[in-house]
Amino acid sequence: MQLTILGCHAATPRKNGQTTAQLLEIRGQLILIDCGEGTQMQLRKLGVKFARIQHIFISHLHGDHFYGLIGLISTFRLLGRSADLHIYGPKGIKEIITLQLKLANSWTDYALYFHELDHSEPEQLLDHEKFAVTTLPLKHRVYTNGFLFREKKSPRKINQDAVVTYGIDIADMENLKQGKDIRLADGTLLANALLTLDPEPSKSYAFCSDTAYLPKLADWVYGVNYLYHEATFLDMHQDLAKKTQHSTAAEAAQIAATAKVGQLILGHFSSRYPDRNEFITQAQKHFNNVHLAEDGKRFDW
Amino acid sequence: MQLTILGCHAATPRKNGQTTAQLLEIRGQLILIDCGEGTQMQLRKLGVKFARIQHIFISHLHGDHFYGLIGLISTFRLLGRSADLHIYGPKGIKEIITLQLKLANSWTDYALYFHELDHSEPEQLLDHEKFAVTTLPLKHRVYTNGFLFREKKSPRKINQDAVVTYGIDIADMENLKQGKDIRLADGTLLANALLTLDPEPSKSYAFCSDTAYLPKLADWVYGVNYLYHEATFLDMHQDLAKKTQHSTAAEAAQIAATAKVGQLILGHFSSRYPDRNEFITQAQKHFNNVHLAEDGKRFDW
Repeated sequence: MQLTILGCHAATPRKNGQTTAQLLEIRGQLILIDCGEGTQMQLRKLGVKFARIQHIFISHLHGDHFYGLIGLISTFRLLGRSADLHIYGPKGIKEIITLQLKLANSWTDYALYFHELDHSEPEQLLDHEKFAVTTLPLKHRVYTNGFLFREKKSPRKINQDAVVTYGIDIADMENLKQGKDIRLADGTLLANALLTLDPEPSKSYAFCSDTAYLPKLADWVYGVNYLYHEATFLDMHQDLAKKTQHSTAAEAAQIAATAKVGQLILGHFSSRYPDRNEFITQAQKHFNNVHLAEDGKRFDW
Repeated sequence: MQLTILGCHAATPRKNGQTTAQLLEIRGQLILIDCGEGTQMQLRKLGVKFARIQHIFISHLHGDHFYGLIGLISTFRLLGRSADLHIYGPKGIKEIITLQLKLANSWTDYALYFHELDHSEPEQLLDHEKFAVTTLPLKHRVYTNGFLFREKKSPRKINQDAVVTYGIDIADMENLKQGKDIRLADGTLLANALLTLDPEPSKSYAFCSDTAYLPKLADWVYGVNYLYHEATFLDMHQDLAKKTQHSTAAEAAQIAATAKVGQLILGHFSSRYPDRNEFITQAQKHFNNVHLAEDGKRFDW
């Protein structure tokens, strides 16, 4: 998996800082998560081929998470896109987008599918051949979801030396990948483990923004490789976090610790803190593997 | 007057190029004209005090002219704006903006006034103490207006030496500024011209984007100091200009020549031309004082 932070600032774009958007590459597919104003420029700067993005997940309808969506949809049309596009987001997102397309008299030539969300429990949104996406209903001032991306189990890997040694027919390769044992022409049964290697473990990523401290989230993201959790505030503004239904760095780290995730990425920083190191310090009181999001930063695993 | 080009590219933002937005300073007032995606970042880069912008004029509801508006309105709110804001734009603009504010559960704390336009003849939109703004209905694929900004006539300037020489009372100064003659205590009538100087001439600016070639526009913008006219295409794409209801550089220059304007600024360039010098060359066959818009460029007059 590869995650690229396109923007990670709370509330409003800065002179040199974008609001929330992330690009996730999962098993060769590109997925856009949230789409703050200016996301299309960020994608251009990275040289991303727009047609590769076929699924866009929008957490909620605050501007710093979706005001760039209508522009991206329009640009896709103007550049002659033909690939389908699927948008997943809160109820109302279809009306907002289609009203703007209607008033601009600019319907898309490509198929645009809206998947509107309103459940308060996790639900599977996408069951792709290679991965699945599930909602993580969060706690915020408007209806908000995080998203859990989980690769499906990979087929077992053929042990090339072993299949040559045992003279396995090419017709059996698919069965081997599926974990089946093989019976040779002379009746010998060869255990699958003799002929294959363990596949790469399935990887996972959980995106959680925006949300107040939500302990049950730890169950839903248990053991993920990477957790992005918003950390709008530091301890000194705990009251503001509560009032605006955001989290502190310490709260994000508590979720990461309880969920025993691999790595924690903090983001959605309030503009009131010129020095971000304190986010690391406060988070590391609870969880060690902490990273700060930065526009343009990449995480590979 | 001072005009700052915030963006001047057609259709979609580029890696380093913004869509249409302009900032006009007129008699100390700041006015925003069009508001493509990312305009708020451009304003921040220029260090513009947001509260100084009290009037925003939107030409039409294509994304490259207004997708940055909702973000700007939201940012004004988040930064604690209290000053009124007036938005002038095509019918429908109020529904688009208010729907987004409603779904984000984020109404503005400041007063937001929408002035929706649907006239097909020029109409005065704003009658400010120091200037007036009139629509210039254009010819495009959706309902579109250009805008004419014209300073009001300034009061005459007091000739300080003359008023001292003639011993004019301070109570007469306002009458002098209004052009009235003054009668002295001994009955002598002093002509206003003896005691005052001509004021600065009233300045004007016409913004015209997007539009097909529209000859009658020349009457409406006759004699303005600066005309911004879109020039999406070069001669070789005259067919495309006609089809998409845009103009060529030559057509923009013909309007400028017929209207005897002072200076012509070309903008709204299609991305298909890597070299913009040809816009100047083709325009100058019809009109000499031609400038190319560039993001961040300033014009003072």
